Amino acid sequence: MPQLSESTADAATRDRYRRKYEHELFERVLPFWERHSPDRKHGGYFNCLDRDGAVYDTTKYIWLLGRQAWMFSKLYRAVEQKPEWLEMARLGIDFLRKHAARSDGRVYFTLTADGKPVYQQRKIFTECFYVMALAEYARATDDARLSREAEKSLEKIFSWAYDWTKVGREAFEGVPPSQILAVPMILLNLIEEVAGEDYHLYQIEMDECFQRVKLHVHADTQKVYETVAPDGSRLDGSTGRLLNPGHAIEAGWFLQHWARRLQRDDLRQLALDMVRWSYRNGWDDEHGGLYYFLDAEGYSPLPLDWSMKLWWPHCEALYAHLLDYTLTGEASDWAAFEQVDRYIFDHFVDPDHGEWYGYLDRESHVTHRFKGGPYKGCFHVPRTLWLCWDLLGNWPDSES
Amino acid sequence: MPQLSESTADAATRDRYRRKYEHELFERVLPFWERHSPDRKHGGYFNCLDRDGAVYDTTKYIWLLGRQAWMFSKLYRAVEQKPEWLEMARLGIDFLRKHAARSDGRVYFTLTADGKPVYQQRKIFTECFYVMALAEYARATDDARLSREAEKSLEKIFSWAYDWTKVGREAFEGVPPSQILAVPMILLNLIEEVAGEDYHLYQIEMDECFQRVKLHVHADTQKVYETVAPDGSRLDGSTGRLLNPGHAIEAGWFLQHWARRLQRDDLRQLALDMVRWSYRNGWDDEHGGLYYFLDAEGYSPLPLDWSMKLWWPHCEALYAHLLDYTLTGEASDWAAFEQVDRYIFDHFVDPDHGEWYGYLDRESHVTHRFKGGPYKGCFHVPRTLWLCWDLLGNWPDSES
Repeated sequence: MPQLSESTADAATRDRYRRKYEHELFERVLPFWERHSPDRKHGGYFNCLDRDGAVYDTTKYIWLLGRQAWMFSKLYRAVEQKPEWLEMARLGIDFLRKHAARSDGRVYFTLTADGKPVYQQRKIFTECFYVMALAEYARATDDARLSREAEKSLEKIFSWAYDWTKVGREAFEGVPPSQILAVPMILLNLIEEVAGEDYHLYQIEMDECFQRVKLHVHADTQKVYETVAPDGSRLDGSTGRLLNPGHAIEAGWFLQHWARRLQRDDLRQLALDMVRWSYRNGWDDEHGGLYYFLDAEGYSPLPLDWSMKLWWPHCEALYAHLLDYTLTGEASDWAAFEQVDRYIFDHFVDPDHGEWYGYLDRESHVTHRFKGGPYKGCFHVPRTLWLCWDLLGNWPDSES
Repeated sequence: MPQLSESTADAATRDRYRRKYEHELFERVLPFWERHSPDRKHGGYFNCLDRDGAVYDTTKYIWLLGRQAWMFSKLYRAVEQKPEWLEMARLGIDFLRKHAARSDGRVYFTLTADGKPVYQQRKIFTECFYVMALAEYARATDDARLSREAEKSLEKIFSWAYDWTKVGREAFEGVPPSQILAVPMILLNLIEEVAGEDYHLYQIEMDECFQRVKLHVHADTQKVYETVAPDGSRLDGSTGRLLNPGHAIEAGWFLQHWARRLQRDDLRQLALDMVRWSYRNGWDDEHGGLYYFLDAEGYSPLPLDWSMKLWWPHCEALYAHLLDYTLTGEASDWAAFEQVDRYIFDHFVDPDHGEWYGYLDRESHVTHRFKGGPYKGCFHVPRTLWLCWDLLGNWPDSES
């Protein structure tokens, strides 16, 4: 059980956090990517950036190119219409459309610096991040044709989402029918991003996602299982026992956004449970921080890196707890927010070069000095800082 | 640079090690697998075994089923014709032939407990371990038909080895032509296992392997690169800089077996360089043990688990140094052997339940309590103990 403080979120405290995140986001995180990531020669961004921003590998990881193009489009729309932010987004979008997107709707996972394909995943996530970027950039540039393109691409993703043989996976007889949390979770976020105010058009798809997410959340054990049977029952073996606390917390706030918008109390409670249970199960009382993976019954998780502390679960937990606190006003949600904030600023932040480290060992020592890598780019850190900064600046009521 | 002791390998010392390994192999390692791994219901072996041998997942990982069937066949032939060892081998072979081997020569990577396919890798290694098992079991049972089958399967592996589009990989324009050490390395071992005394029949294939292995060993930096261009030059980026010390050391002793057998001084020196350089580069002076991965130029390696200490590189280093010492008589080779022995018995060995732990963090704490998992089975530990025990008992000369 995490050790939580007793302080409260009065206006002065909130303002202190808001100013801290503002400084971190606009002075230390965004400048890192603005300075070091653009590839002015071939377009797009480099995302393998060393501690000081030096490019240590020129491979372009398309998850991260899509996410960075989304981030700068979002900042342009939601924070300030800075031309250089739109230009940064355009640099990514043009490269993605020219090189990453295939004519059949699939999107390559990796490209060379000059845009030649290197690898194609047999999953749907690269496509998801590409569509997110397209939709937000279309809105930033008020481009109706591009919006339509994003909507059509989302339709394709829906058609693949629950049957990956359509994206090249072989179906083997011995694989038990199952579903992973990652899919309905990312779709909920994608609908939010693509649909905007027209979300009613996606009612059927949203309801299916709510239904599916719910199957992963088990009240009897207070755990969120990453993979379950189609009816929500637990699967045998290591796969069935695997917990990914950061993932469940992220899914929690995706869902909480919908609960808030649709004023659905059932979803609100489900999302709260997901975040609180996963945080409680995932926190390491001895060394602090959230584990990457756990086994629900205490066996050793199979992933070799299970006990590492990664930056992104902490990003998700920071915003999720802050958001929950605006809804519940409960001290324990605020205390969890402050606990994560403290862990982040004690361990992930790099005062010398900006951006955050991504990977710590169980004892919270930095294991990888780079700021960007195959799965870390200009996304989780600026997204969470922006979300928290925005929420702190638009506090829903004035009870304190 | 590893801190090495000055002791020497006199007959009494060698005998002490031989007795220690004999006890470890026959009293603590083999009984663990004999007791806990057999699946008497469906055949084959369970390989996901917890610290005490309890099955925590019933998935059958075919790399490890092949390797275990090989190990028991080998023990039967090379150590003692115990009927229970042959029976143990047969349990694996029958299951593999019935369920894992496909009619086109491909072999599934994972099966359910009752033999239904779960996953097929787009690589050649499952096939290699299957053929190893087949060849050794054929020899143990004096089955000429099965020997022919192993030889024919090896031919198929040769035909796929350097073009993985033949096993289902897509070829993308942006992937630079390259070769990985793993392929010529495993083929050298496989020829040794399949050919036996008829190795002259594989002269062309062996020469190609020698040629290819050599391209990974760079005298200018004293490093063994895991992936190089077809002409042996270094590739850009993280892939080109990746070092896998345990792998290079294992390849070193595979090659040293051939150097000894063919009395090739050039190969002898190449193999010595591979082992010594990789050990020196891979040893962690601060916490002891061999790193899993390193970056040749000091960047952070991309794998999240790069700084972990895995059991198998230490198994390879134990035997490789002992073997090298029989050839060189140099104190530094003996000292390295003793250093690895000490690290293993300080950290990997489990006096309570037998077998060894597989995974330690950088500071040498056990991170995974299980004894068997997706990549750890009845193979590296008994193989190295048997090889060392055998070498210590058949010491090539009596200079000390």
